[in-house]
Amino acid sequence: MISVVILGNGNVATHLYNAFSKASAIAVIQLNSRNPKNITNTDVTIIAVSDDAIQQVSQSISNRKGLLVHTSGAVDINAIVTERKGVFYPLQSFTKNAKIDFNNIPFCLETSNSDDYHLLEKLAKSIAKNSYQINSEQRKKLHIAAVFVNNFTNHLYKIANDICIKNNVPFEILYPLIEETAKKVQSISPEDAQTGPAKRNDVQTIKNQLENLNLQQQKIYQLLTKSIQEN
Amino acid sequence: MISVVILGNGNVATHLYNAFSKASAIAVIQLNSRNPKNITNTDVTIIAVSDDAIQQVSQSISNRKGLLVHTSGAVDINAIVTERKGVFYPLQSFTKNAKIDFNNIPFCLETSNSDDYHLLEKLAKSIAKNSYQINSEQRKKLHIAAVFVNNFTNHLYKIANDICIKNNVPFEILYPLIEETAKKVQSISPEDAQTGPAKRNDVQTIKNQLENLNLQQQKIYQLLTKSIQEN
Repeated sequence: MISVVILGNGNVATHLYNAFSKASAIAVIQLNSRNPKNITNTDVTIIAVSDDAIQQVSQSISNRKGLLVHTSGAVDINAIVTERKGVFYPLQSFTKNAKIDFNNIPFCLETSNSDDYHLLEKLAKSIAKNSYQINSEQRKKLHIAAVFVNNFTNHLYKIANDICIKNNVPFEILYPLIEETAKKVQSISPEDAQTGPAKRNDVQTIKNQLENLNLQQQKIYQLLTKSIQEN
Repeated sequence: MISVVILGNGNVATHLYNAFSKASAIAVIQLNSRNPKNITNTDVTIIAVSDDAIQQVSQSISNRKGLLVHTSGAVDINAIVTERKGVFYPLQSFTKNAKIDFNNIPFCLETSNSDDYHLLEKLAKSIAKNSYQINSEQRKKLHIAAVFVNNFTNHLYKIANDICIKNNVPFEILYPLIEETAKKVQSISPEDAQTGPAKRNDVQTIKNQLENLNLQQQKIYQLLTKSIQEN
């Protein structure tokens, strides 16, 4: 049995709490991060608060025994001030009220000593299929890569949606293509999967398509076309 | 029974032929587009050749009876020179050797007369669940939207893959996030789904992430960040 305290009441904290509650080998409680001083010690304390607050919360509970970890993709392990520290980062985009199946979410793990790594790995495996040993430097880069495949990709979907709305075409026609594009990179590399007017250098189509976009969309179209062609 | 000739031997032609062959209400043959003059007339002739060749192929078989359609997202219906003309455009990215399940691929249909629309719709429904009436102008815009959600999105995946390779992180860690991002727009609009440093205007994170990118990646990061913030 691993005993766990989760500090925080945001999306990640709540989703983690719900998942651990269903895992038989985990005893978990969730607490507001402001007043956790009087709680008994646990094997692991998970600080699931906003990036900016991690260091401060860690300082306020520096007398706690056990392993202290945060859940952020962007914050260094050393934001935790205690000796036994770690990172327990589920690489996914969490939305309030959306159901989360942790089983398919990869956990990026880091600890300051190797015994604690095994503890953290056991904790991750109690709710998820895959975990990876990722140090703070790698995690920072992974977080940047995630911005490209999640935040920026979603913005391209938004531009496509804008084009559909403007031209009275249902956006849902694009759902299967969006899904297929996302799935394809699991079997062939994105480099080999690249198709389209930019890749073929289809000058006439590129010219025609640019004429149908607004200024902001044109800039994005041109820059991404150039980047595809230079790769 | 609908009788069909498919002209062409590229990806779309071959995938369509395989799908129609399994549909009980369709009699289909596939031919090279160069010498189709001596073939008996059919209800529908599908010109599945490259965009540039559609008009010429259509001219070379202008004496054929029945409905003549092309399969392109970018070409106007009037590239077909006969009176009974149409467009039979499956909105998906076709890769050689990859298995295609037409059932989930939306067909965008257009015909010069309404009787032929019902014929074309029947043909689409024999292999696919969803079809939409989309005119040439709408189809052109849809094709542009498809470039954003497919070609450009795939290029963002490529950049993420480059970042992973450079930092010795397995790209597969990002697969669940890529899939989730693609699925999320089916339940909430991409505008509402937008998250990340750009959306939060997290200036410090944006600055840190930019420092870890090469020049080309920086330009894309900055332009997409700006575009997210102005929307």
